[in-house]
Amino acid sequence: MGAHVAYRDLVGFGRRNMDVASEDLVADVIYQIGALQGLAAAAGTRVRYVKPHGALYNTIAHDARQARDVIQAMLAVDSSLVLVALAGSPLIGWARDAGLRTVAEAFADRGYMPDGSLVSRREKGAVLHDAEVVAARMLRLVSEGVVADVNGNDVRIQADSICVHGDSPGAVEMARAVRERLQASGVEIASFVADTAQAAG
Amino acid sequence: MGAHVAYRDLVGFGRRNMDVASEDLVADVIYQIGALQGLAAAAGTRVRYVKPHGALYNTIAHDARQARDVIQAMLAVDSSLVLVALAGSPLIGWARDAGLRTVAEAFADRGYMPDGSLVSRREKGAVLHDAEVVAARMLRLVSEGVVADVNGNDVRIQADSICVHGDSPGAVEMARAVRERLQASGVEIASFVADTAQAAG
Amino acid sequence: MGAHVAYRDLVGFGRRNMDVASEDLVADVIYQIGALQGLAAAAGTRVRYVKPHGALYNTIAHDARQARDVIQAMLAVDSSLVLVALAGSPLIGWARDAGLRTVAEAFADRGYMPDGSLVSRREKGAVLHDAEVVAARMLRLVSEGVVADVNGNDVRIQADSICVHGDSPGAVEMARAVRERLQASGVEIASFVADTAQAAG
Amino acid sequence: MGAHVAYRDLVGFGRRNMDVASEDLVADVIYQIGALQGLAAAAGTRVRYVKPHGALYNTIAHDARQARDVIQAMLAVDSSLVLVALAGSPLIGWARDAGLRTVAEAFADRGYMPDGSLVSRREKGAVLHDAEVVAARMLRLVSEGVVADVNGNDVRIQADSICVHGDSPGAVEMARAVRERLQASGVEIASFVADTAQAAG
Repeated sequence: MGAHVAYRDLVGFGRRNMDVASEDLVADVIYQIGALQGLAAAAGTRVRYVKPHGALYNTIAHDARQARDVIQAMLAVDSSLVLVALAGSPLIGWARDAGLRTVAEAFADRGYMPDGSLVSRREKGAVLHDAEVVAARMLRLVSEGVVADVNGNDVRIQADSICVHGDSPGAVEMARAVRERLQASGVEIASFVADTAQAAG
Repeated sequence: MGAHVAYRDLVGFGRRNMDVASEDLVADVIYQIGALQGLAAAAGTRVRYVKPHGALYNTIAHDARQARDVIQAMLAVDSSLVLVALAGSPLIGWARDAGLRTVAEAFADRGYMPDGSLVSRREKGAVLHDAEVVAARMLRLVSEGVVADVNGNDVRIQADSICVHGDSPGAVEMARAVRERLQASGVEIASFVADTAQAAG
Repeated sequence: MGAHVAYRDLVGFGRRNMDVASEDLVADVIYQIGALQGLAAAAGTRVRYVKPHGALYNTIAHDARQARDVIQAMLAVDSSLVLVALAGSPLIGWARDAGLRTVAEAFADRGYMPDGSLVSRREKGAVLHDAEVVAARMLRLVSEGVVADVNGNDVRIQADSICVHGDSPGAVEMARAVRERLQASGVEIASFVADTAQAAG
Repeated sequence: MGAHVAYRDLVGFGRRNMDVASEDLVADVIYQIGALQGLAAAAGTRVRYVKPHGALYNTIAHDARQARDVIQAMLAVDSSLVLVALAGSPLIGWARDAGLRTVAEAFADRGYMPDGSLVSRREKGAVLHDAEVVAARMLRLVSEGVVADVNGNDVRIQADSICVHGDSPGAVEMARAVRERLQASGVEIASFVADTAQAAG
């Protein structure tokens, strides 16, 4: 179970950038993680990772100040929490330097730029829909460490986890296609918090 | 540190009765306790008791259904949480039967009815303002187990804690007067979660 | 265009009873009507009626204090607004006495008790699903002024408008069946604010 | 009466920049103006001007896209509304070009940069506290069209209205000092919507 912490913007579903002061952002993130910890305890489990949502995810991938706020909040609540962050982003290094375990994330259904960043949703090629194409891309990512960028050239991506957006049409089919292609090729899929979970059990 | 859980009614400051379904009330209470647990962890401490706020406090003092919801939420998050509840209310028994430790609460600045309930705020004699009168009443409460009701007759109140509303004018002076009168009479004042705190330390 | 004013309870979608003080309820209703008036003006039209939503609709059908608050709010903003209210409820009379024009509303997809009230959603027979059965009931309502109650006896209902809940499955089909059955029987369907609209044009 | 429209950020009191899409910003501004129009109607008056609040005020002073959204919303609700905007900002021209009447606003209690913009609140000299100094500055503003900037040089400011922040300590004293100094010097103070108000009466 992971906390998808976000800006306090229910109406905008956390998808709008907000210039939140550090004091407030730290408190909001602690509050949201804590609330989910309470719900997790009531369900007999616990929160193991944090993956910021929407605009906060994108902002802290490269904004040092807000990244520091989220990292500080996680350390304050539970320093064993894992941070899931955009593969290749400066956030990965900042979080590791601060002592957090990180998981680098690739996006199955998104196109990549030559520098390894995602194609903006305003551009052509931002979102991929063909489950088989996506599955083949992810197999290359896992086995060779590369995906084809928008120009057809290979770009190196180091990822520990693959995200399929759950609210996209065809999400289940795409997730299944990726899983099957990987497993058929002998790739073992494992929870990135499995060891922690066993240790806790 | 205690969680003052309330109806989800920020605009009304939790002071308006709401007919919340059990499923939602349980979830709201878990969420709020959890959020405070997160903040407490970040501050190096932890939540030890729950005292419902405003309309929720008054409702669950006698409403069995909503009382059960709050009790269930507390048990689900942390069964060692102490419930602070209106002295003499059925809630005390319900919570104890469910396995929660309870603390019965008297109100320093409120008048009492012959049956031990509070004088409604719409009636004369509901709120007391004279710190010395209040201090004398609380000393009788502690030493003899009674307070004078609105008719001047003694009514028996069994209380473990005394509440002075922090947002009333003169609150600090009243709290100080009560504390000094009690201590001058040899009453020892102690945190009702002191033992728990030491055990946790 | 009508304003579906509601308790300020976004999370509960206005479906939970709230004990809102008159001062606050009047202000909330004015605020919500005004906001829709602004949006209506921007769209080149205007708000002609008010139909309270959810718990507020049910409460003011019989609660004189909250009914008076809603009526007062409507009169304060625009005394030409029409109030849509439950057919047979005391609210109809209260609103008329206060000078509001009212429209009595019947529910196509709901069962009726012998006294003309709706069958509670917790009871059998509360909700009707068969579009043809509903259409036949509504034709009797319009032509004879009666519907069959849960026991099969006729109950008299005086209604000016028929509601089909837009978020029910089959709502469009049901609305179409009712309209066609009425029109096939020579009933003319008209907007209850048509004259007002022409006058405004 | 004026509408202080703001980003939909109650927790942050509208003081945090938000990257709101145009469709949402136009709707939010219409909604807020409309709500106040409803309350104004209930009080027997009407909304005559709009002065955006907090972060929205500062952003649209120079951000053409969000400025256009606010202007569009005002025109859609009531094209006779007056826009109060930062003196010297590009917003003044954009609004006039779109057909809105504008009122340029100077700030009594703020320091000015050589280019006529406000000294950032993070810098020294941003906020002025001495009521007599402020009154003298405002008299020069009105009679000579200049104020001294942070370096002591005159900067030209063309303003129709003077703002004293109502939530600052000493606000009433400062407003009174400015008014008295202006009136003692023969300056007549008038509502910028006075004519409109008479016409409406």
